[in-house]
Amino acid sequence: MPATNLLDSVKIVLVGTSHPGNIGGVARAMKNMGLLQLCLVAPRAQFPHPEAVLRSSGATDLLEHAQVFETLEEALSDCTLVAGTSARSRNLPWPLINPRQLAERLQGELARPEHRIALVFGREDRGLSNEELHLCHLHVHIPCNPDFSSLNIAAAVQVLCYELRMAVVGQSTEDRLPFGTEWDVPFADNQALEMFFDHLEKTLIEIDFHNPNNPRQLMSRLRRLYLRARPDTMEINMLRGILTHTQKAARNTNEITDDQTGQK
Amino acid sequence: MPATNLLDSVKIVLVGTSHPGNIGGVARAMKNMGLLQLCLVAPRAQFPHPEAVLRSSGATDLLEHAQVFETLEEALSDCTLVAGTSARSRNLPWPLINPRQLAERLQGELARPEHRIALVFGREDRGLSNEELHLCHLHVHIPCNPDFSSLNIAAAVQVLCYELRMAVVGQSTEDRLPFGTEWDVPFADNQALEMFFDHLEKTLIEIDFHNPNNPRQLMSRLRRLYLRARPDTMEINMLRGILTHTQKAARNTNEITDDQTGQK
Repeated sequence: MPATNLLDSVKIVLVGTSHPGNIGGVARAMKNMGLLQLCLVAPRAQFPHPEAVLRSSGATDLLEHAQVFETLEEALSDCTLVAGTSARSRNLPWPLINPRQLAERLQGELARPEHRIALVFGREDRGLSNEELHLCHLHVHIPCNPDFSSLNIAAAVQVLCYELRMAVVGQSTEDRLPFGTEWDVPFADNQALEMFFDHLEKTLIEIDFHNPNNPRQLMSRLRRLYLRARPDTMEINMLRGILTHTQKAARNTNEITDDQTGQK
Repeated sequence: MPATNLLDSVKIVLVGTSHPGNIGGVARAMKNMGLLQLCLVAPRAQFPHPEAVLRSSGATDLLEHAQVFETLEEALSDCTLVAGTSARSRNLPWPLINPRQLAERLQGELARPEHRIALVFGREDRGLSNEELHLCHLHVHIPCNPDFSSLNIAAAVQVLCYELRMAVVGQSTEDRLPFGTEWDVPFADNQALEMFFDHLEKTLIEIDFHNPNNPRQLMSRLRRLYLRARPDTMEINMLRGILTHTQKAARNTNEITDDQTGQK
């Protein structure tokens, strides 16, 4: 199943949002990460709102299809797993998990269409009430600077949706993004590398930079440097070309001319 | 060391940002995650700006201490590791890592005060140019919906800073041993790297390997190769020494003799 479809079953529920611009920012963050279902519970400003459309930067389809509810209970009625965001532990301590633990927890659920998952975000100024958090199976806390802990709501949605996307891209091959996915040239093999190092050493002797009778660690250090970069075949050809030109330049002018004539 | 201090060495660099509100949103996201150093390269609107203050929701200290530079090179001159955000692979593919891989990669560096790390974010409408990306050791891509892939810049900063915070929370002072922990020589900073690339280009022209009027992708490919290896200061000195000897060898015999005589 493509990654985006795995996230179809997740809805983002915003409770009592004050600023329409934030609703737009949430829609944009959701759509960037491949989530589609937006629910609003008792938004405090008029909705729809032009500021929401503006800040959504083109995620207007999510705004148009957003469902608006009077109460959180209604918004959650069909959900099988609910996670609420919580800034701090409350008077009744509840296990807090971080967004990564949430994503791990949801990973199995996401692949099963019978699950309907909600992530609930509270008001800009005071989050979710205790009663609202008590409707949630899981309480999620985003690690943050204790001296400056209030995230913008679209930023909080971004972080949770990012974690969900990271959890599903690992599952579907088409979405994976490993090192060098689209590298255009095969990596050089050992033989090509050794021929390069050999050519490099000869050239360094020729330009009087390297004295094989007093080698110090020169060649070892150069090997370490180039092997760290793991050159591809085109890069090795390029480096060999540079060495050849260095050798030509180092030999006397007549010889270079002869060489070039000979090649043509 | 407390988690927040571990993030002190990381600066966020915004290139050519259009909207002051986004700069404020970035400052808020940074401070929420415990990062403090904001750099602006050629912002396209007036700065400071009241809209930035408004959107920062109290992260005004970051805005007040923000450094403004004319060019990205200046902003990066003291940095030992630079990661640039990239929306897609370019005509010259470069290894892309995701934000989690970045955080893993940086985990060891964060504990060492001699490292100065920069995360670079491009323009709202078109990101970083190829030339700007070629100043970066690492290219980071945030996994996203391929049909709606443009994240708000504050959201992108939020995701990367969140990953860094996740990497340092729970990390004690006697951390794990990461890549390069026991490296014996400090890594070259951006200025030293740029001087090397400059010297390299001049030398390649002198030995007639590089034609600046028909550059193809030569210098880009060489930058990619050397930045992948992340040279240390001794390696850069070694490479510069090779270039100097190449230049001497390429000049005519009399000149070399004169030079050598002069040195003795």
